[in-house]
Amino acid sequence: MTEAVLIEYDQADPEAKAVFDEIAAVRGIDPRQVNNFWKAMARHPAQMRRMWSNMRAVMTPGALDMRTKEMIYLAVSVTNACDYCVASHGAQARKWGMTEEMFGELMAVVGLANETNRLAAGYRVPVDAAFKVP
Amino acid sequence: MTEAVLIEYDQADPEAKAVFDEIAAVRGIDPRQVNNFWKAMARHPAQMRRMWSNMRAVMTPGALDMRTKEMIYLAVSVTNACDYCVASHGAQARKWGMTEEMFGELMAVVGLANETNRLAAGYRVPVDAAFKVP
Amino acid sequence: MTEAVLIEYDQADPEAKAVFDEIAAVRGIDPRQVNNFWKAMARHPAQMRRMWSNMRAVMTPGALDMRTKEMIYLAVSVTNACDYCVASHGAQARKWGMTEEMFGELMAVVGLANETNRLAAGYRVPVDAAFKVP
Amino acid sequence: MTEAVLIEYDQADPEAKAVFDEIAAVRGIDPRQVNNFWKAMARHPAQMRRMWSNMRAVMTPGALDMRTKEMIYLAVSVTNACDYCVASHGAQARKWGMTEEMFGELMAVVGLANETNRLAAGYRVPVDAAFKVP
Amino acid sequence: MTEAVLIEYDQADPEAKAVFDEIAAVRGIDPRQVNNFWKAMARHPAQMRRMWSNMRAVMTPGALDMRTKEMIYLAVSVTNACDYCVASHGAQARKWGMTEEMFGELMAVVGLANETNRLAAGYRVPVDAAFKVP
Amino acid sequence: MTEAVLIEYDQADPEAKAVFDEIAAVRGIDPRQVNNFWKAMARHPAQMRRMWSNMRAVMTPGALDMRTKEMIYLAVSVTNACDYCVASHGAQARKWGMTEEMFGELMAVVGLANETNRLAAGYRVPVDAAFKVP
Repeated sequence: MTEAVLIEYDQADPEAKAVFDEIAAVRGIDPRQVNNFWKAMARHPAQMRRMWSNMRAVMTPGALDMRTKEMIYLAVSVTNACDYCVASHGAQARKWGMTEEMFGELMAVVGLANETNRLAAGYRVPVDAAFKVP
Repeated sequence: MTEAVLIEYDQADPEAKAVFDEIAAVRGIDPRQVNNFWKAMARHPAQMRRMWSNMRAVMTPGALDMRTKEMIYLAVSVTNACDYCVASHGAQARKWGMTEEMFGELMAVVGLANETNRLAAGYRVPVDAAFKVP
Repeated sequence: MTEAVLIEYDQADPEAKAVFDEIAAVRGIDPRQVNNFWKAMARHPAQMRRMWSNMRAVMTPGALDMRTKEMIYLAVSVTNACDYCVASHGAQARKWGMTEEMFGELMAVVGLANETNRLAAGYRVPVDAAFKVP
Repeated sequence: MTEAVLIEYDQADPEAKAVFDEIAAVRGIDPRQVNNFWKAMARHPAQMRRMWSNMRAVMTPGALDMRTKEMIYLAVSVTNACDYCVASHGAQARKWGMTEEMFGELMAVVGLANETNRLAAGYRVPVDAAFKVP
Repeated sequence: MTEAVLIEYDQADPEAKAVFDEIAAVRGIDPRQVNNFWKAMARHPAQMRRMWSNMRAVMTPGALDMRTKEMIYLAVSVTNACDYCVASHGAQARKWGMTEEMFGELMAVVGLANETNRLAAGYRVPVDAAFKVP
Repeated sequence: MTEAVLIEYDQADPEAKAVFDEIAAVRGIDPRQVNNFWKAMARHPAQMRRMWSNMRAVMTPGALDMRTKEMIYLAVSVTNACDYCVASHGAQARKWGMTEEMFGELMAVVGLANETNRLAAGYRVPVDAAFKVP
């Protein structure tokens, strides 16, 4: 057996099936159309439930709107080079209104930040007193 | 000599001094108050000029506002654990309107994304056809 | 020529062949069945020998048993999103007794650690005196 | 204000105070002795509550014992170079029985895994069919 | 639409076409043979222009020759496990004279550095006074 | 006890002392002046011996000269933001002839590579057939 097993809805155990149903309900899709990430998580129903609860708690409109949250999620996924997450959250960000132009600007910021993060490390730049805790 | 040398404005060569002056003018501060990152970059004036030009080109209002851009910059810096950048761009994001509540939500998204990025890798989740290029 | 050349046992030079033979003997398999990682390393026989010696020295039962060592190896590989290593060390960990339930708990710990590692960086949490060196 | 603010128990709001009390109860310590990570999280009580719930759900004995879980947590923290987490989970792992010898072996595995993860990437090693999903 | 769209030269807008032409002229190839990275960047012509200007400014002979610069680029790409960049800059490094033996030594250094970087983090080694800024 | 214990030469056990002596002999210094990395490794003499043997095997002139090898080591350390390694290998690289100008160019390449590595991931750029294995 390998790391790559996916559990389809019809083969899922009741606990996992319940989570598939909640995801499907929230997204207004058929539970069999839920994306692969959750089919993989279904291998461990309790974890799947816990991760879904966290996703629901965090990825909800608050002080930040959904588009901004998905763009931040995408920026982290690009930085970690997580191809699955770049594809899935890129799609989510667009669903919430990220335009092609916004995506281009997001990529420019992510690229520049990854560059200057290393410049700060390589030049061993000390944090300015102005930024430090009083 | 070590990686940690900082060049103060008054010791900078003309090319670096000109960049310090531009940064100061844009921020409405004295060139001697420019932050340490640039004092380190001043060791290599041509690079300092190039990085400042890139910073100016990217960190400007466009399809995304400055607050969103600084929050994306901060999200990347937190993911890379760049303490200098977390401190400096955290300050910038606040200057552009990031509230304590927004920061809390940003951290929640960054934390969750870093978690699920690894779950996708560990479960070796294949990208859904729906996300793939036609 | 590209980075992806693999040297098959029958084409390997004597020094690399000797390492293939040792790996095969240790694993009780035919030297032609040794996995791709070593076929790639065979491009540089001296490095292949050195890496195999390190692997033998580290991945042997000691204060930690093989299952625990392979699970730690897997946890690092998941964190670095090394798909090859997740696949190969996932298989090794299972060979040494990692059950599906243990894998689920390992993934939960790896995911949570990657999340809190970033929270510590983003909140710039200072190390408690209790954790510091006396 | 900066990223580094810590909220002491006596200044915490009721929701955060309740989490401090739970942590203290579980660890058998005074709530004022809870470590800095939680004092930082107390800035955002709802997140603090959610993270503590996740920590409780994951860091509990199951198919894996606490020592093994804390060693996996430590391996991830070392790989991400999270100094705070290396210090705190190193202390936790020792509390759960990790000896100096076990720590040495853990470090050897973490170091070797980080090395071979990059060798697999640099040689662009394809995953063996034997490791692939049937 | 997904993240993976590539813009071919004949479909590119004038601004992007001009960059394709410059890249082709510098490399002495047909603009239709420019590699995929630039076809992706062509989605955002202004960014494509900016990135090409940076590439030209940095990847030019100076105090370091092109072979050394491409090997450093490759070392970073291997460390970040960027498969595209390992393939493209591996090819570039070879074009500039990196032999198979040099590649083997580069990989040995990259592997060892990734290992000792984590040992330094895990043992929490303080920087020697001799290395510190006076 | 914490992760940060350093073993001084006079307190080291015979096996570790022998390694300190070899390092000192190679560098032409007093064994009490060996840098902190090795004082930390001395906690686990067998690992210290193994790491020193690897360091000796890899960091020796071959197809690549010492300056180039130390610059590659530095590039990796900057990318991983290992402050200890940036300080120690930056000093080593200078000892082997890296000038301030070379360091500036190295940092420019490292910064640009870290930027484009993420652009390749974010745009999900497929590897060109020209770069693929035949």
